[in-house]
Amino acid sequence: MKSYHINKGAGLAGLTLKEHDIPAPAPREVLLRVRACSLNARELLILRGYYPLPIRPDVVAVSDGAGEVVAVGEGVTRVRVGDRVAASIFPQWIDGPFGWEYSAQLGGSLDGMLTEYTVLSEEALVHIPDHLSFEEAAALPCAAVTAWNALTGGQPLQAGETVLTLGSGGVSLFALQFAKLFGARVIATTSSDEKAARLTSLGADDVINYRTRPDWHVAVRDLTGGRGVDHVVEVGGAGTLEQSIKATTASGEVSMVGWLANSDTSMIDIKVISATVLTLRRIAVGSRAQFIAMNRAITANQMRPVIDRVFSFDDARTAYSYYQDSQYFGKVIISHD
Amino acid sequence: MKSYHINKGAGLAGLTLKEHDIPAPAPREVLLRVRACSLNARELLILRGYYPLPIRPDVVAVSDGAGEVVAVGEGVTRVRVGDRVAASIFPQWIDGPFGWEYSAQLGGSLDGMLTEYTVLSEEALVHIPDHLSFEEAAALPCAAVTAWNALTGGQPLQAGETVLTLGSGGVSLFALQFAKLFGARVIATTSSDEKAARLTSLGADDVINYRTRPDWHVAVRDLTGGRGVDHVVEVGGAGTLEQSIKATTASGEVSMVGWLANSDTSMIDIKVISATVLTLRRIAVGSRAQFIAMNRAITANQMRPVIDRVFSFDDARTAYSYYQDSQYFGKVIISHD
Amino acid sequence: MKSYHINKGAGLAGLTLKEHDIPAPAPREVLLRVRACSLNARELLILRGYYPLPIRPDVVAVSDGAGEVVAVGEGVTRVRVGDRVAASIFPQWIDGPFGWEYSAQLGGSLDGMLTEYTVLSEEALVHIPDHLSFEEAAALPCAAVTAWNALTGGQPLQAGETVLTLGSGGVSLFALQFAKLFGARVIATTSSDEKAARLTSLGADDVINYRTRPDWHVAVRDLTGGRGVDHVVEVGGAGTLEQSIKATTASGEVSMVGWLANSDTSMIDIKVISATVLTLRRIAVGSRAQFIAMNRAITANQMRPVIDRVFSFDDARTAYSYYQDSQYFGKVIISHD
Amino acid sequence: MKSYHINKGAGLAGLTLKEHDIPAPAPREVLLRVRACSLNARELLILRGYYPLPIRPDVVAVSDGAGEVVAVGEGVTRVRVGDRVAASIFPQWIDGPFGWEYSAQLGGSLDGMLTEYTVLSEEALVHIPDHLSFEEAAALPCAAVTAWNALTGGQPLQAGETVLTLGSGGVSLFALQFAKLFGARVIATTSSDEKAARLTSLGADDVINYRTRPDWHVAVRDLTGGRGVDHVVEVGGAGTLEQSIKATTASGEVSMVGWLANSDTSMIDIKVISATVLTLRRIAVGSRAQFIAMNRAITANQMRPVIDRVFSFDDARTAYSYYQDSQYFGKVIISHD
Repeated sequence: MKSYHINKGAGLAGLTLKEHDIPAPAPREVLLRVRACSLNARELLILRGYYPLPIRPDVVAVSDGAGEVVAVGEGVTRVRVGDRVAASIFPQWIDGPFGWEYSAQLGGSLDGMLTEYTVLSEEALVHIPDHLSFEEAAALPCAAVTAWNALTGGQPLQAGETVLTLGSGGVSLFALQFAKLFGARVIATTSSDEKAARLTSLGADDVINYRTRPDWHVAVRDLTGGRGVDHVVEVGGAGTLEQSIKATTASGEVSMVGWLANSDTSMIDIKVISATVLTLRRIAVGSRAQFIAMNRAITANQMRPVIDRVFSFDDARTAYSYYQDSQYFGKVIISHD
Repeated sequence: MKSYHINKGAGLAGLTLKEHDIPAPAPREVLLRVRACSLNARELLILRGYYPLPIRPDVVAVSDGAGEVVAVGEGVTRVRVGDRVAASIFPQWIDGPFGWEYSAQLGGSLDGMLTEYTVLSEEALVHIPDHLSFEEAAALPCAAVTAWNALTGGQPLQAGETVLTLGSGGVSLFALQFAKLFGARVIATTSSDEKAARLTSLGADDVINYRTRPDWHVAVRDLTGGRGVDHVVEVGGAGTLEQSIKATTASGEVSMVGWLANSDTSMIDIKVISATVLTLRRIAVGSRAQFIAMNRAITANQMRPVIDRVFSFDDARTAYSYYQDSQYFGKVIISHD
Repeated sequence: MKSYHINKGAGLAGLTLKEHDIPAPAPREVLLRVRACSLNARELLILRGYYPLPIRPDVVAVSDGAGEVVAVGEGVTRVRVGDRVAASIFPQWIDGPFGWEYSAQLGGSLDGMLTEYTVLSEEALVHIPDHLSFEEAAALPCAAVTAWNALTGGQPLQAGETVLTLGSGGVSLFALQFAKLFGARVIATTSSDEKAARLTSLGADDVINYRTRPDWHVAVRDLTGGRGVDHVVEVGGAGTLEQSIKATTASGEVSMVGWLANSDTSMIDIKVISATVLTLRRIAVGSRAQFIAMNRAITANQMRPVIDRVFSFDDARTAYSYYQDSQYFGKVIISHD
Repeated sequence: MKSYHINKGAGLAGLTLKEHDIPAPAPREVLLRVRACSLNARELLILRGYYPLPIRPDVVAVSDGAGEVVAVGEGVTRVRVGDRVAASIFPQWIDGPFGWEYSAQLGGSLDGMLTEYTVLSEEALVHIPDHLSFEEAAALPCAAVTAWNALTGGQPLQAGETVLTLGSGGVSLFALQFAKLFGARVIATTSSDEKAARLTSLGADDVINYRTRPDWHVAVRDLTGGRGVDHVVEVGGAGTLEQSIKATTASGEVSMVGWLANSDTSMIDIKVISATVLTLRRIAVGSRAQFIAMNRAITANQMRPVIDRVFSFDDARTAYSYYQDSQYFGKVIISHD
């Protein structure tokens, strides 16, 4: 079996393919044949050396993957051989609020999914929706669970509330899709008319081009009769946080997602926060229980992730390059088949 | 102006039409021209003498109504002349949990809506969705707000969860419609194939005929892979509560709605509850804030109440009779136009 | 090493002492030298055959115990040799709401603590407060965690709220002590003046003798100015549930605890519930996360469990008899030392 | 009757005493004889012109006051002549989350309490605890309700959790007292050993002198075994927010209180937030329901506010000067008696 290994800060050049024996599952562990992976911003941040959590030297790359159970260790009760599963990024975070004791993560301090086979503890695994291919399921662990946590983990999202999404990255597209499942209204920002059209076709009720409306929070206010939105899925950091706060209604919620890279300016005036009444939630993906709940929502509504492009396992390096350099719309997938 | 007045236990014969002067609004009060009303089980319980809360002698009948603001008293800021509004049944219950100090209610201890004009305090009023007629908006205050509270006031409803509704009364139909707005799966029970078809067309994912499946909770379990449902909107009391509890998943929620009339048997074995882990919420309609939030959901999703039949103000007595004797599906409305 | 084994319905006569080899911990498992156990109603229900969950034939008895880590398997990170720990009754219930998939329990489907040594998975264990002896810590897993869940797992307990506790069983005494830690007011019921004095010395603000006040819910109402209590820790089932509901304020919460044995009458009139607005929570002990949070509260406030009497490991049978037949006040402990 | 009037930005020189007729209560209004007031930072911010909410020209000063009902208008049901009451700062904010439609406030857009008599709507009033003098009760509306909201309005405070308070301003002292009522552990920061001793005598478990420990968040981490605190009542803005965030445990909560004046530097690096997982709640005092709940806690625990000094109504100007210039510890009160 083959795996791709990385080192923090080693760049794409450091992505190394190695040959191994197929491992055997210990008690309560599961051997998974990985069938597809997806890329997230974290993979690039790790290669650039900006990722804030520990990365084990020579760790198997990539947090997100889905596959098939091919063997189970003694005492495994949650999955059976043949089950189609994905892995939760923080395998020890079962339910309830995040704690640092749960911060071991796939493709970080633990081996990741850019491999043909991997062994995981059974509680790391969740069953994937029947109607999704492995490629589609591989899109879920990081971006979709983060979007789900942003919308449901704090103030619960209700039908009729308004959600603001920023741009068309993975988390934002899932947030848009989930918000529509909940009967919410979605206002999305974007940089081009072409993307605006795609956001609209995904269900966005209103799209604001932030190039032509650099003061887009005013446009959001106008679209909500001055009230502001109930939830922001804030992925932009310093470039957008101030406007996101100003776009939020009293007692609304801004969920902060993602890691800031080496941006030169990442300051915000505290007075922007003090002038409002709201909640800022800094979140980190989500728990196994949230992943399972999300999959129920995806299944019940036969929702499908947006896939931009699929690369083969042999072309993993090309996939990274494409993800790094391109204007993708939807998830970039590596299929092992 | 004319109003219909009632007395507790006086039966339909006691429904009396009287002539009055049009009242004037005091400070912070509003004069409303009522345009439509709707009937709920409470109206019949009052006439039969079974309603548990105090009924003022000779009170103006009916809790549910919608109309148009025709005059405002000094200091009114929330509505203007010409606004289309409905009244909250518990006008003093603004937000937060219910308290007995908020239990004054329209068509009970306070004059109700089966009148051409009425004066209400401004905080009793909520704006109605633009896309609804007065007849449709008059369907909301009791049944829809109760369904909304049942689904959102306790454990928040999430996409992908399963909701069980019982029959096709007002609360159950709204619960079905709201659950679908939230992306939930709905299992509905009913007594006939014809009603089953109508429930399906409203969005029910599965319908169980409880006449052919008297052990319908087993059918619910089967439909959920043995897991049970997350929420039950329990309107049936002694006839259904035990099966509703048995149909519910661990840590699920049964919201108990409505008043039991003089049923002979209303006992339940506590062991049925002790054998589970769940929450029973006994609720009472909902707050003004919940009414407003619900209206946002109705507006954002352009949802419409199901109307069974509309009677004229002059035919109010006929409307009562029809509501009492018929197999309606949807709300029975009295239009003042 | 020696262990006591039981069989469902076999009575106290079936409690059998056996000799075994000391087991070795597998990966992620821990070998515990048990130092003390405590008895709960469940132990008697199992022997009588009334316990509703599965009991493995010849299982090691008793859910509650505390001890010392004497060896750890590969990969164990949460505890070290020498740590003082207790075991969570539902070892797989880590955090979040209860699910049936977590219902494997110590002294039930899993071996229990009435043994000199046992092997447990590391996530079953929680560190015990430094100021508690093993005997005191062994009092916590079932009764204290249940009381903690009752008071904090639903509507969060706040200073100034009123809590009603019933009698002087294990859960009720812990509920009284925890409620006082939170700055709540406590009304307790009891059957004798002598117990009343002990409840008062534990902090109860008011004690009602239910023998002299069989309509004790009226007394509770009177003591709260007619308002009723915010939380009831309901342990009495059919004998008390109706009065507990009537003693509760609007939007208050009744947490139902414990299993009903073969009482002849366990019926309640649904109209009692329908006449109120409140939440009934049927609960089952609590999660590992709740156990840890509770231990923080016990530590911060240097709280100590009430111990009635301590028996030796060799006298376990006598401890069972005493627990079954006596009017204990506080926990009955079996010390292995 | 006499009242003190202010204008935004007019400074203390603008505080003007005027003579009026005693007003009469309209329907649902109450005439209050104010017996005591207290000062808060908002009063100084208004005089300096930095207060962010609208201030009505020539408004009666001061948000906080307590007094005696001397007359009631028609239809008033919640209070009676002779009742001892305080006023809620946002009289229209009854319960539930804050909304801008509730932002009319006493001593701001509405007349305040630095007057001998005032007329208020009945829902603005809450009964004060029996054991408190008017001077003590006048200390509550702004600072105490804010502290209560900070600790209970977001993630509910539990016994055993750790609360961090900053300095010895009004909100911080109440937060310390409330946290101790709840059985929490309190770590307080301060600038002098003398204040440290007073904080300790109020119940603080640990006090850190931030002059000798400018990196006090490290000291907080050390005192919590590296874990960090569960709640911060953050009153310091730019001077402290970064350290407050760094002192907080995963999934903990920082409640931001107060308005920043014209500080030159009020920037924070977003990376400080991104490096954590937590919730920042920007809050604004609290609702009437929170005021009532807080009063229950104060009553049940016979808690008393810390009073620094009491001035007479005639010396109101001196009270302002003292409040502005001095190192008070506890509330500065103006007594009308």
